[in-house]
Amino acid sequence: MWAPVSWKALGLASLLLALGMESVVLLLAFAIRGRGRRRRPAAEVLFFPAPPTCTEALLRPSRPLPCACGLPHAESSLSRLMLRLLSTRESLELCLFSFSSPQLARTVLLLHRRGVRVRLIADSDYMAVKGSQVGMLRKAGIAVRHDQHSGYMHHKFAVVDKTIIITGSLNWTTQAIQTNRENILILEDAAVVKAFIKEFESIWQEYDPTNYEFFPAKK
Amino acid sequence: MWAPVSWKALGLASLLLALGMESVVLLLAFAIRGRGRRRRPAAEVLFFPAPPTCTEALLRPSRPLPCACGLPHAESSLSRLMLRLLSTRESLELCLFSFSSPQLARTVLLLHRRGVRVRLIADSDYMAVKGSQVGMLRKAGIAVRHDQHSGYMHHKFAVVDKTIIITGSLNWTTQAIQTNRENILILEDAAVVKAFIKEFESIWQEYDPTNYEFFPAKK
Repeated sequence: MWAPVSWKALGLASLLLALGMESVVLLLAFAIRGRGRRRRPAAEVLFFPAPPTCTEALLRPSRPLPCACGLPHAESSLSRLMLRLLSTRESLELCLFSFSSPQLARTVLLLHRRGVRVRLIADSDYMAVKGSQVGMLRKAGIAVRHDQHSGYMHHKFAVVDKTIIITGSLNWTTQAIQTNRENILILEDAAVVKAFIKEFESIWQEYDPTNYEFFPAKK
Repeated sequence: MWAPVSWKALGLASLLLALGMESVVLLLAFAIRGRGRRRRPAAEVLFFPAPPTCTEALLRPSRPLPCACGLPHAESSLSRLMLRLLSTRESLELCLFSFSSPQLARTVLLLHRRGVRVRLIADSDYMAVKGSQVGMLRKAGIAVRHDQHSGYMHHKFAVVDKTIIITGSLNWTTQAIQTNRENILILEDAAVVKAFIKEFESIWQEYDPTNYEFFPAKK
């Protein structure tokens, strides 16, 4: 009943089955690794106030001075934010209620000079206040658009290379950075980034200067 | 040389190997499913302004009226936010610069009455402005703490059941909800939520009333 040939067949079949299973195991193991790598959300949360620190080394990489400013040269939430912005290679969308921080303005200017396509949406009321950096950036050749409504353009977000969203409570002002309790969330999540890009493009179109009506016709 | 017993041994060994592999395949398959389920970030982005809508059905679930207020009964970013808050079962941490929206205050009050442990951190300047809901919530028995600093407590975040973070540019005011360009990000990400809880607890301790120094001793 138990002929040798049956064992032979069974042995070969089982061996093939085992080898097949092994391939599946390897494929699944790779799938898990790939899935883990792809899905891991690269999230970073920064809290403020941040103590004043020297950020010259970030802004003048060609001239890495032993800066004599007297400020600490430690890492801070501001330097972390600047590093994220400075990682931009192609495009930077900025949608900012208030933008008066000289350090962040110099960061954006540096990116513009490196050839990054920077677009900035500002709030019409706050872009004109004392200390605002919006005029300087516009003069430097960065495209700026703003509302002409009574409501505030109160967003404070940035999109880096269409892949990273930077959003939170922080207005880009020195007061907010150094004095307030604030948060910034930096997130690499395709669906979230897509939603913010859609919002940016929608506002960008709505604030097209050709649609401005500073002198609306009388009825 | 090729004895039947060898085939028998080989067959049995291969069969066991195949069965073992199968278990590994099943385990890995479950691991992938579990991993996918655990890691999928439940993210939602809400944009404002939101058109005024009737939210009575959310706030009075026991009396689902055909409300006669005349407002549209459609879904809006505000109703989506309220729904997320109303999903709270155990704890709600609120860290809000400005809180004057009657609808959001009623939402929080409803949760408090349902037995949710609500804690609210407010900004000392804005908690006292006209229309602020902080006093009402405190009188209703909700624990409130605030700063006594010159800088703003400018956060606008909420943590639902220690698992969901709600954060963005939106102050909880009717002006912001109905008039401004604003965003809210709702995220279920353990590491991000943990960072915000840590920030909340740190501020909660710092703003402990026993540490208030309203009349600091003269030097």
